[in-house]
Amino acid sequence: MARTLNIAVLGATGLVGRTFFRILEERDFPVGELRALASERSEGRTVPFKGAQIPVHAAKPESFEGIDLAFFCVDDDISREMAPIAARAGAVVIDKSNAWRMNPDVPLVVPEVNPEDTRLHEGIIAGPNCTTIQMVVALAPIHQVNPITRIIVDSYQSVSGAGTAAVEELDAQNRALVNDEPVEVSALPHQIALNVLPHIGGFSENGYCSEEIKLVNETRKIMHAPDIAVSATTVRVPVHIGHSEAVHVELTEPMTAADVRDILSRAPGVAVIDNPAQAEYPLALDAEGRDEVFVGRIRRDISHPQGIAMWIVSDNLRKGAALNAVQVAELMMEQGLF
Amino acid sequence: MARTLNIAVLGATGLVGRTFFRILEERDFPVGELRALASERSEGRTVPFKGAQIPVHAAKPESFEGIDLAFFCVDDDISREMAPIAARAGAVVIDKSNAWRMNPDVPLVVPEVNPEDTRLHEGIIAGPNCTTIQMVVALAPIHQVNPITRIIVDSYQSVSGAGTAAVEELDAQNRALVNDEPVEVSALPHQIALNVLPHIGGFSENGYCSEEIKLVNETRKIMHAPDIAVSATTVRVPVHIGHSEAVHVELTEPMTAADVRDILSRAPGVAVIDNPAQAEYPLALDAEGRDEVFVGRIRRDISHPQGIAMWIVSDNLRKGAALNAVQVAELMMEQGLF
Repeated sequence: MARTLNIAVLGATGLVGRTFFRILEERDFPVGELRALASERSEGRTVPFKGAQIPVHAAKPESFEGIDLAFFCVDDDISREMAPIAARAGAVVIDKSNAWRMNPDVPLVVPEVNPEDTRLHEGIIAGPNCTTIQMVVALAPIHQVNPITRIIVDSYQSVSGAGTAAVEELDAQNRALVNDEPVEVSALPHQIALNVLPHIGGFSENGYCSEEIKLVNETRKIMHAPDIAVSATTVRVPVHIGHSEAVHVELTEPMTAADVRDILSRAPGVAVIDNPAQAEYPLALDAEGRDEVFVGRIRRDISHPQGIAMWIVSDNLRKGAALNAVQVAELMMEQGLF
Repeated sequence: MARTLNIAVLGATGLVGRTFFRILEERDFPVGELRALASERSEGRTVPFKGAQIPVHAAKPESFEGIDLAFFCVDDDISREMAPIAARAGAVVIDKSNAWRMNPDVPLVVPEVNPEDTRLHEGIIAGPNCTTIQMVVALAPIHQVNPITRIIVDSYQSVSGAGTAAVEELDAQNRALVNDEPVEVSALPHQIALNVLPHIGGFSENGYCSEEIKLVNETRKIMHAPDIAVSATTVRVPVHIGHSEAVHVELTEPMTAADVRDILSRAPGVAVIDNPAQAEYPLALDAEGRDEVFVGRIRRDISHPQGIAMWIVSDNLRKGAALNAVQVAELMMEQGLF
């Protein structure tokens, strides 16, 4: 691991983009050249990295020449256009968008769950959606011991998952409400302050929204378990950072809560916080800025003989996005894939 | 219905108590004498009713003499002490606490679901917990046509369900956050502003909290369906009024979303709002001050062949508490039970 990698971050000025620079610095990632790329709008801005200010440049096809590793955190359409260009230029693209996740030629990787899938890449590796990542990190270790047959998950997702504009909108609405001023709505479909919205992404014919469908398809692909039944209701809540999930799983064999707690306490990337009598359970507010997937409220699901219920919380900008991508890169270095 | 009833409201100064006076006025309930009762602390306060100010008196055993109907919205221990006294004095007690709900001699009534159970009363009738009421109003009409075998419900519950202190705490925390001041926590176990808490009520040995257990037991009793399997995760969210629920049910036979929508559009007390492509679905903010149980996001649950998923929202102070109790009283007048 002595060599360094030339790195580009495309989408450098967004919430996830800025988190990438913070995490590369925190983990002392072996960065050679570091290019901050974004849309033309952001040309001239800078992002902080190790005490310096990295200038942001408008991304162009030639921006990826000499780059070994490109972290993409941009919209699907930009990723669809630029990722093949970066890959052809010789970079490995680790992409955060929805553009490549279900492409059979693109591995969808959570290092704790399916590390070997990186080896199948052809230049592009996809990172799952935030809600999927934290759920599979907690469920895969259970699934290995006692296969999961069905998952029901209802989410409590922070506004940072919808980008900077949604965070600013929640803050502006809270300010307006405190000062008795009119509330303005533009980034999210309805007022989010003092409200919850069962709507993340666009709706399909079957009545599910895209965020829910991602949980279904991505979970199956990452866990190599095409037959797991999954249903979800994904809900935006007035929280800045940190997604919470109420999860109910059905296993092949009955299992005690103590057994699940034991498995998860040894699982990579998981921290168990489970002492509800002392009001100790994972909270979005505590997960902000942390790397772990926090699991608590672990109990036999009393509605099913092989059921387990739990509460899963993680920082959606870190493990749900930038951290997972950096961990994929670290894994690939260990695997000698650079 | 020409005669009037002498009415007492015990717990008159609380959030639900004040809602009782508003609803009795709105519905032009045939009120004779009206007594506002509370703890000694509230002696000397008043509550508004039809333009007058009703003085609040400290509740004593003799407070119920001459009373036909007593609405109780107090803690379990006070209800356990006072309800038998009021009943012996000749009043019918409609109680909102948890004290009597699972008592086999006490009917637990939601007028849209089990109206005939009122006839079994021996002086005390219990009203279910807020989360149960809105769920059974939406599920019972489906259950009648196609029996429900299992329910999984994850809730998004407003702070008003925890009383005035919790509402004031959320407001104070939001004010503090907007003004960059320290946040204080006392009414709820953790900061609720910009957070969600998977903890309502005390925890049992089985890992469920009391709010979750209420959903299990009350649903079975009200629906006369002791075999329905129920599991829940109940979560407090930073919303003032209005509880939301993500509900996943398993039916005896497969059913289309259109069939469910059709049943619910004719169901008493239910309003269907279900056009997600136009961002139309029930919202807590819209339910505040309304009488209906709002249902949307109705869809085949893709994780189960007989599954249906939906999103249920209602005003927890109204249908979830005071309105349901007043509707029970109206029903009993129609049934000639006064």
